[in-house]
Amino acid sequence: MTTDERASAAPGAGRELGVAVLGMGTVGTEVVRILRDGAADLTARVGAPMVIRGIAVRDIAKDRGVDPALLTTDAQSLIDRDDVDIVVEVMGGIEPTRTLMLRALDAGKSVVTANKALLAEYTGELADASRRARADLYFEAAVAGAIPVIRPLQQSLAGDTVELVAGIVNGTTNYILSAMTESGADYAEALADATRLGYAEADPTADVEGYDAAAKAAILASIAFHTRVKAEDVYREGITGVTGADIESAKAFDCVIKLLAICERFTDSTGQQRVSARVYPALVPAKHPLASVDGAYNAVFVEAENAGRLMFYGAGAGGAPTASAVLGDLVMAARNKVHFGRGPLDSVYANLPVAPIGDVQTRYYVAMEVADRPGVLSSVANEFSSRNVSISTVRQQTDHGGAGARLVVLTHNAPDAALSATVEALNKLDVVTAVSSVLRLEGTDD
Amino acid sequence: MTTDERASAAPGAGRELGVAVLGMGTVGTEVVRILRDGAADLTARVGAPMVIRGIAVRDIAKDRGVDPALLTTDAQSLIDRDDVDIVVEVMGGIEPTRTLMLRALDAGKSVVTANKALLAEYTGELADASRRARADLYFEAAVAGAIPVIRPLQQSLAGDTVELVAGIVNGTTNYILSAMTESGADYAEALADATRLGYAEADPTADVEGYDAAAKAAILASIAFHTRVKAEDVYREGITGVTGADIESAKAFDCVIKLLAICERFTDSTGQQRVSARVYPALVPAKHPLASVDGAYNAVFVEAENAGRLMFYGAGAGGAPTASAVLGDLVMAARNKVHFGRGPLDSVYANLPVAPIGDVQTRYYVAMEVADRPGVLSSVANEFSSRNVSISTVRQQTDHGGAGARLVVLTHNAPDAALSATVEALNKLDVVTAVSSVLRLEGTDD
Repeated sequence: MTTDERASAAPGAGRELGVAVLGMGTVGTEVVRILRDGAADLTARVGAPMVIRGIAVRDIAKDRGVDPALLTTDAQSLIDRDDVDIVVEVMGGIEPTRTLMLRALDAGKSVVTANKALLAEYTGELADASRRARADLYFEAAVAGAIPVIRPLQQSLAGDTVELVAGIVNGTTNYILSAMTESGADYAEALADATRLGYAEADPTADVEGYDAAAKAAILASIAFHTRVKAEDVYREGITGVTGADIESAKAFDCVIKLLAICERFTDSTGQQRVSARVYPALVPAKHPLASVDGAYNAVFVEAENAGRLMFYGAGAGGAPTASAVLGDLVMAARNKVHFGRGPLDSVYANLPVAPIGDVQTRYYVAMEVADRPGVLSSVANEFSSRNVSISTVRQQTDHGGAGARLVVLTHNAPDAALSATVEALNKLDVVTAVSSVLRLEGTDD
Repeated sequence: MTTDERASAAPGAGRELGVAVLGMGTVGTEVVRILRDGAADLTARVGAPMVIRGIAVRDIAKDRGVDPALLTTDAQSLIDRDDVDIVVEVMGGIEPTRTLMLRALDAGKSVVTANKALLAEYTGELADASRRARADLYFEAAVAGAIPVIRPLQQSLAGDTVELVAGIVNGTTNYILSAMTESGADYAEALADATRLGYAEADPTADVEGYDAAAKAAILASIAFHTRVKAEDVYREGITGVTGADIESAKAFDCVIKLLAICERFTDSTGQQRVSARVYPALVPAKHPLASVDGAYNAVFVEAENAGRLMFYGAGAGGAPTASAVLGDLVMAARNKVHFGRGPLDSVYANLPVAPIGDVQTRYYVAMEVADRPGVLSSVANEFSSRNVSISTVRQQTDHGGAGARLVVLTHNAPDAALSATVEALNKLDVVTAVSSVLRLEGTDD
């Protein structure tokens, strides 16, 4: 049997599949290009031709190198067309996107989206619509661009128990932190460079404050733990407070600083399984696989009960890489239309409680300016020990140009609440001028 | 709607799914354990309980910690049972396994297999049976254990064009080469250690001669290039000829030696797209992501037109990691039974010609024992240049205890045929005592 014969043996083979593309920014432009340039291959892989019925844009007058007849500002009418089978959403935003996606799914149209902010809030609603109408909802492109992360967690690890997902999932912040590490630049300089080179947007808030990573953490935690986790459940700190001195101190501890999205399952003191999702800059040992993920690259590290340690690495953003992920989903959704198949379903049966940050245990890095006189270390150490926060390493620097000294403490694992109380007490100590940085230390074995 | 209500809304929900397990070695034992210990989670994820109907083993008398009533030596009768929906094949071997798998598929039973040797030879036949009967064929566990590789290539990159897959896909050889690199041990010592520690089998031929990696290369190339590639199409060299001197020379060039499975798409001089699949020990620059994959770990590096560079890393073998991959496939196959879904289909439409090794271009490392006298380098260099093999770097060591010298040459890209002819000519030169090693250099940009 030839491929053609095989394809035509499938129930929906041959018939054109109509695709609506919503949005023609960086990613949308690449999606349209690949659909055009790769048409022959895509047809062979799907078993039917995929045809763009229209592209919804804000400004129809702008020349986009496509047949102007395809362009429309009326996304809803485009979605509603009888000859549209699959909707590719790369327009972003919450509304009207959410309403449009629900409308598409309710009408039995499969949806492929790269919209992390929407998913971090409304996956439940979208997944319910998808299930009711037996329409697929795919979103590999929403996390870590071209890197397959959703599919491995959702499918490859479907028979395993995921314990930890720790990802570098934001290219902008990784570029800035890498630049600070390599060149010794401070945060403001590195951000300015990133903006100039196009790695940071004019308003970098979503990236540098960790909102983008938090949305991705919510999506990853939901899938990894079969539990609905929303963006608001994710504890979040950005990188704006990371100083050159922190980067240098990290190096002295053989660590680098990375903005991590961490999704963790743990058993609390009452024996209850709980999950935590959090985003913050953390020290990572130089020998950890995540430590060498530099520049605009992304990586997601996974630990599962049986699979052990896995890591997925690649380009986390950019038009073509993100479009590659969109196209992978689009081909799957289209094949399902041809073969009357079914994409993966939302799975939230485990419904584990999300722990507040105060209950989460990690190791800490605490940097403080202190008086340069005997007895300081003893007073400082006492504040840690009286709250059962065990100190692992202390480094003191006296040669940093002022009258005082800089003291850096690494702790063993401790609950966040105990550490916060310790920091509050340290700030009240006479011998402590200020606690200048509190960061976590992740990726060590103890 | 609760999860239970959702699941029961699916067409095949609630009904028990019968599973036949064929083989209870290292992987089969773990599969059975996870099916038992994880039953509640697996039921929730599938939407129906999976129940082991029987386990086919060779020796029914051996105590395996399972209900003896489940054990049978009659795999065929087990597969034929009406209440078996999915067959998990972890018994290995070509026959009777092939016949049993075809029988299962023909009867509409989904098959999950970890059998790389079988797939490298008979995927076509199995895929045809799977398509005819609308029964799923899954085999994530066949390549790189727990690391999701098949699914990313087959699904995530379904809309992209894969240019290169370069994998460390054999843990035994990676353990041996890592040990040689770290401790300076020679091949025989490192192999003896690996055998003692259980990383190498009593007869290590399949691993050290590259047969295992070649089977995996055939599977990866077939999926990556939508082209049927069989084990016999894969050029293969093992690691038995790699010496401590090669490892040392590689270090001097800032490289490590790894056994690579390489699947490459290239355009030949006539403009024809061709693919190549090959397995050999190669020098890899220390800064390449594959270089730091040590010990029994596996990693697969992928370059695709739009996605760019991706890498997947993790445990490539072992009972629990491989069982994790089997279970992921099993849950997918079971969900498809519940939701009348359909797994991914074999795709070989591109049908690209497989290039013979002589036509493949790579860079080379050539080590030779030469006379220690003037004019040697000139004679040697002439043999390269007269065959258009351009030399990149030459290193000469005179202090290695003999009367002669050791000359190591790195070339730029050259066709294998030209290099082979060069080596033959070098061996005939009076000034060359012997060409002691010819290895490739992979992972550089030129």
